[in-house]
Amino acid sequence: MIVVGGSASRKLSWEISKELNCRFSQPEIKSFPDGELYVRIPEDLSGEEVIVVQSTPPPQNENLMELLLLLEAALEQKPRTLKAVVPYLAYARQDKIFKKGEALSLKLVSQFIEKAGAEEVVVVDIHERESLSYFSVPVKNVTAAPLLGKYFRGLNLKDPLFLGPDEKAVQQASRAAKELGAAFDSLEKERLSPEVVVTSSKNLRMKDRDAVIIDDIISTGGTIAEAAKILKRSGARRIFAACTHPVLSGNALEKMKAAGVEAVVGTNTIENSHSLVSVAPAVVEGLKQGSLEFY
Amino acid sequence: MIVVGGSASRKLSWEISKELNCRFSQPEIKSFPDGELYVRIPEDLSGEEVIVVQSTPPPQNENLMELLLLLEAALEQKPRTLKAVVPYLAYARQDKIFKKGEALSLKLVSQFIEKAGAEEVVVVDIHERESLSYFSVPVKNVTAAPLLGKYFRGLNLKDPLFLGPDEKAVQQASRAAKELGAAFDSLEKERLSPEVVVTSSKNLRMKDRDAVIIDDIISTGGTIAEAAKILKRSGARRIFAACTHPVLSGNALEKMKAAGVEAVVGTNTIENSHSLVSVAPAVVEGLKQGSLEFY
Repeated sequence: MIVVGGSASRKLSWEISKELNCRFSQPEIKSFPDGELYVRIPEDLSGEEVIVVQSTPPPQNENLMELLLLLEAALEQKPRTLKAVVPYLAYARQDKIFKKGEALSLKLVSQFIEKAGAEEVVVVDIHERESLSYFSVPVKNVTAAPLLGKYFRGLNLKDPLFLGPDEKAVQQASRAAKELGAAFDSLEKERLSPEVVVTSSKNLRMKDRDAVIIDDIISTGGTIAEAAKILKRSGARRIFAACTHPVLSGNALEKMKAAGVEAVVGTNTIENSHSLVSVAPAVVEGLKQGSLEFY
Repeated sequence: MIVVGGSASRKLSWEISKELNCRFSQPEIKSFPDGELYVRIPEDLSGEEVIVVQSTPPPQNENLMELLLLLEAALEQKPRTLKAVVPYLAYARQDKIFKKGEALSLKLVSQFIEKAGAEEVVVVDIHERESLSYFSVPVKNVTAAPLLGKYFRGLNLKDPLFLGPDEKAVQQASRAAKELGAAFDSLEKERLSPEVVVTSSKNLRMKDRDAVIIDDIISTGGTIAEAAKILKRSGARRIFAACTHPVLSGNALEKMKAAGVEAVVGTNTIENSHSLVSVAPAVVEGLKQGSLEFY
């Protein structure tokens, strides 16, 4: 067994290979003078069980192309099996045609990962579980929520509430809360357009309590900021934000801070300064499981 | 019939629709705050003959993803036929595995264009004609050489020689030269590595003559600069460079100028300040032809 680590998952792929106690390959990845990507896996992969680990955060198209080229490079060597670990899957939110004339981007991306050679795919906290049906190969969706919950054990929170900013995130909140024997709840979110979100207030009793707002992804930070304002008004003491995928576009951090968020805790599905939690244990468990979907 | 114009081929796609005397669609193309591409074709395409025109020059992965999303967006609308015009095809030079462990990038790109829905593909002056076999749908490779040749008719050249910098480019040189009833020849090029090229001198009699060095692509300008030096030593009066695909990476222009090249004439397979010749007539002829390959 050998783990091939793409450039967007350098540390995570190494950790996965350590947990699996298997070989590790750091492929040669460069850009030609004109900007075309070049990848090469120097190790002999013929007859091997190969796991390519490459996340696809911004710059999504570059990271996606690298993932696809790594799979193709592996496939050319005729491995015994070829699996793709894509911790953060780009275009996961364009999983439907919201307006006539749009592309179904996620369908395309899923098809390309398969076409490039992946016989099995592992993703972490996909935005919509139903959207995994665009894959025809087995796909495992593992969750980082318990790992995020565990992280907060060390922070000495006061009677914490794990809050999903919308009803979809309540599962994430409940799983994280369970690790601390803490409470969880959710707000109600209404999306009027891709950019405009209305969050309904709830009668939260937060006096002298800490809160962790938890979601699958933090992109512009708008949803988290809205939730933080509600928590603030409800009297919350300290407010944290947690997520699996810390995309953090533009001024997301400033926006959340202004709304009262003390710190943002993300995982290494996207390797940046907010990747405080490693998803390696969840990914490895996913790789070992036989079922298609497990939590 | 309707031509859908991608952002890398805005002008060319418009010209093609004019030549075809058909409808034109300028799709909605934007980036989300996190950098993901969004495309939408507002026109009704159901039952239509749709031609998506999108070149894939640098930034290749962005332009490629846009091409694939445009094809997917068109396909979702159930057109009668769906064709892709990809004037400059990215990754065309990674058409073989040169060193064990590499990805066969062009194979992947070809498969993706098909998978996204293209039932026929038109490219312009592909680097290696054989590499078109990675497509299983019909593909037409049209040449811009006569159009480039015609351009030089207006420049009042003196007893011009059209020179291919290597033997592969001699066909390009001969086709361009024919338009002026001019002479053509080629040098011999040996590629020691992707970066190191040795050009063998030839006994060219260039005294009081002008020269046009012509190739399919000018990327770093190294090959053209080498050829220009040889022409200079052979006594050439004026030296021009011409190509189908003016990629012109980094300091390519400075390098060629320093070697004695007066001007660089390219086509609009890549829309930049050197796209002096439109390939629209060649593309339209290609779209109308029934044969798979024609020159």
